[in-house]
Amino acid sequence: MEPIKSFELSKEYLESLQDSIEIQNNSFIIESFEGANVADIASLLDELNMDEAIYVLRLLPATTAADILIELDEDSLIQVIRELETTELAGLIDQMESDDAADILILMPTKDREDVISHLQEKEKSANILDLLRYDEDSAGGLMAKEFIRANKNWNVVQTIEEIRRQAEKVEKIYSIYVVDNRQHLLGRVSLKKIILASSDTKISDIYEPELISIPTHMEGEEVAEIMRKYDLESVPVVNAKNRLVGRITVDDILDLIREQSEEDIQAMTGISADVEESDSIFRISKARLPWLLIGVIGGLMGAKIIGFFEVGLSKYIALASFIPLVAATGGNVGIQSSSLVVQSLASKSVFDDTPWQRFIKGLLIALVNGVVLATFVFLVVVFIYGFESIFGFTIGLAMFCVVLLSSFMGTVTPLVLDRFGINPAIASGPFITTANDLLGLSVYFGVAMLLLKL
Amino acid sequence: MEPIKSFELSKEYLESLQDSIEIQNNSFIIESFEGANVADIASLLDELNMDEAIYVLRLLPATTAADILIELDEDSLIQVIRELETTELAGLIDQMESDDAADILILMPTKDREDVISHLQEKEKSANILDLLRYDEDSAGGLMAKEFIRANKNWNVVQTIEEIRRQAEKVEKIYSIYVVDNRQHLLGRVSLKKIILASSDTKISDIYEPELISIPTHMEGEEVAEIMRKYDLESVPVVNAKNRLVGRITVDDILDLIREQSEEDIQAMTGISADVEESDSIFRISKARLPWLLIGVIGGLMGAKIIGFFEVGLSKYIALASFIPLVAATGGNVGIQSSSLVVQSLASKSVFDDTPWQRFIKGLLIALVNGVVLATFVFLVVVFIYGFESIFGFTIGLAMFCVVLLSSFMGTVTPLVLDRFGINPAIASGPFITTANDLLGLSVYFGVAMLLLKL
Repeated sequence: MEPIKSFELSKEYLESLQDSIEIQNNSFIIESFEGANVADIASLLDELNMDEAIYVLRLLPATTAADILIELDEDSLIQVIRELETTELAGLIDQMESDDAADILILMPTKDREDVISHLQEKEKSANILDLLRYDEDSAGGLMAKEFIRANKNWNVVQTIEEIRRQAEKVEKIYSIYVVDNRQHLLGRVSLKKIILASSDTKISDIYEPELISIPTHMEGEEVAEIMRKYDLESVPVVNAKNRLVGRITVDDILDLIREQSEEDIQAMTGISADVEESDSIFRISKARLPWLLIGVIGGLMGAKIIGFFEVGLSKYIALASFIPLVAATGGNVGIQSSSLVVQSLASKSVFDDTPWQRFIKGLLIALVNGVVLATFVFLVVVFIYGFESIFGFTIGLAMFCVVLLSSFMGTVTPLVLDRFGINPAIASGPFITTANDLLGLSVYFGVAMLLLKL
Repeated sequence: MEPIKSFELSKEYLESLQDSIEIQNNSFIIESFEGANVADIASLLDELNMDEAIYVLRLLPATTAADILIELDEDSLIQVIRELETTELAGLIDQMESDDAADILILMPTKDREDVISHLQEKEKSANILDLLRYDEDSAGGLMAKEFIRANKNWNVVQTIEEIRRQAEKVEKIYSIYVVDNRQHLLGRVSLKKIILASSDTKISDIYEPELISIPTHMEGEEVAEIMRKYDLESVPVVNAKNRLVGRITVDDILDLIREQSEEDIQAMTGISADVEESDSIFRISKARLPWLLIGVIGGLMGAKIIGFFEVGLSKYIALASFIPLVAATGGNVGIQSSSLVVQSLASKSVFDDTPWQRFIKGLLIALVNGVVLATFVFLVVVFIYGFESIFGFTIGLAMFCVVLLSSFMGTVTPLVLDRFGINPAIASGPFITTANDLLGLSVYFGVAMLLLKL
């Protein structure tokens, strides 16, 4: 087979690349990468083994290698930075914006991290990175970069363009120029469009828009994302407690954050404990999934004990067993619906939201409506189609009604309580809470049945 | 109480606003809105009744009212556009970019829509909107705007700045300038930063970067979002089949799309049929939730029939009933875990993904590992802690093993099949499939038990 000549995201090209690495055909590698996007090269390196990936990174110019490093999968990235020499890694970090540098350094043990920072060329960058590392990774401070263009309100357009020229290499994408006073307080922003259209001697103070939206360093990333979505922002300035401009957050980091968070939410809901992907090894996936499955199994075994407790009654009215799955499934469905509505509304909090107490009342009313409809339906089917006695139908119906109410209550309250304690409320739809609800539901079902059927 | 004087997102201000509308205190309304962000005003109007919202919109200048309209909740928006006069609505749409205009017009009946378009001032805008309406709402064509800056490769910097000046009012945010040849074929892009830093007579052909990433009109929105995230783009050009530049998509629309889609996915998983929010009325929420609960209930009732079928055997070995919730819950948990891993990997497709066949084998191996661990655990607990006979423990363990295998198979295959048929694979974790899996699991459990216990 003729090896593939130019860069392409394909299994065939991946094989030619691996062959070329083995025979050290460096010119093929370098030539075929020309014009390729760094994110695509990173996807490709994610598929290589670690020695191969490092071989390729060492071949490329530092600026390119740095851009690729930022785009690697976290798994590959951790392996690669562990293998690179301290000076090599410092050389790559010299080429990065401060937020990307901090994102990489945070993955290293503190000692190695300090070692790398001490090898950086520019003292200003070291200081910036150390500053960023102080903030919580998921806060605005942890998301922001220290590279951006700021203009003093007393400058004119020419002075501002001079500043852009000075910073052009450091600041890859500009979006807005932030306007500050002499003490670095944020006053507003001016767009590049306005700079282009203004005459050279126009003063910045005459054309800037007073900035209404700025983000404090401690704000949570999720909230920053919601603000940028709501106000259609592609970048947003970050200020400290004294309203001094300390950084900016750009939308590309927010897109990554949103994706990570929606994956985390789904993992919380489905009970896959570690950060796994379908492409990971069989044992890694098994290991990530087993803990939650075990919780479910232990819950099921406890459920067996609960049912065993009612065994005498059950043996007198064996048909009760038939409706266990009905009651369990309905409880589960109602609980997940309730909790997901609450989780969704917690994700975009608004001052017009109901108070917890109003939510509780509303959830109760919805549960009453749904409970009555479902219980009536079940009663009718059990009595008139399945032909059971009406007292039995009434028992199943009433048990259903109680389970709907209970699950709805648990589904509404659990995420609110979790959120209050700063825990991701999506866990409320996960296996732990679901299992607990199942057990409660079973107890209610048999409790009602024993009472009504006098068993 | 002193009424609140200036705009604020609060329940108190909302009340003063409603009072001012009632007594037609127009100066209060207009003055308090000064400097407020349109997205915030829209949040406030969402809380008003329709007559109040329209009263406010009519008070404001058309440009502001148009910006607010775009930001309204879909529910409020539909009500408002139904009430506005055709000429009024046309006046507002005249102020919008083409993609926002199309997003609003798509909500109207075809006849009304044509009526509004015929009242637009600019013929070019009517043509642009009609063009956008031809595309599927969720495709790149449906997401793009027709307003953007394009430069001919033969222009110099001064000519380009002239074009920016001409289009300045129509194109709110510029991001990149797209470079085309004389026949409108997309050649590449040049950033505003480069325009500012270049000398006036520099030719565009000397400074533009050849654009590697452009989007065909028919690409799905979800895929566009993934591309913009992966390549850190804040805007992306859209081309037709002949590589002619026809529009651009900006990241603000993508952020909205991602949010909508993650809400849709969660709703698909939790079985809430319509697009409801926690703030909707009790009956609307009940109505949206009941259909899926009913499916679950009907499934449960069918499950009762299945168990009833084994009633004779069950009455001989009543303890079998106790383990129904264990088997059902484990099946459900395994199924949801499997399907969510597949759904997650379908959301970011890559050429290096496993083939369906490889996925199937891998899923099988993971299920084997988990099945053996869980079955052994259950066997040990049932026999040595709960004190059942070992044949009974073996039966429960084997049934568990079979259910894990089966649920894992269904959880892996269902989303792949749904995706192949163009259906949102997230439905695989929803109530319909879950219910079907429950029934299969029950049959397997009792089938294995009847065989092994010779009932």
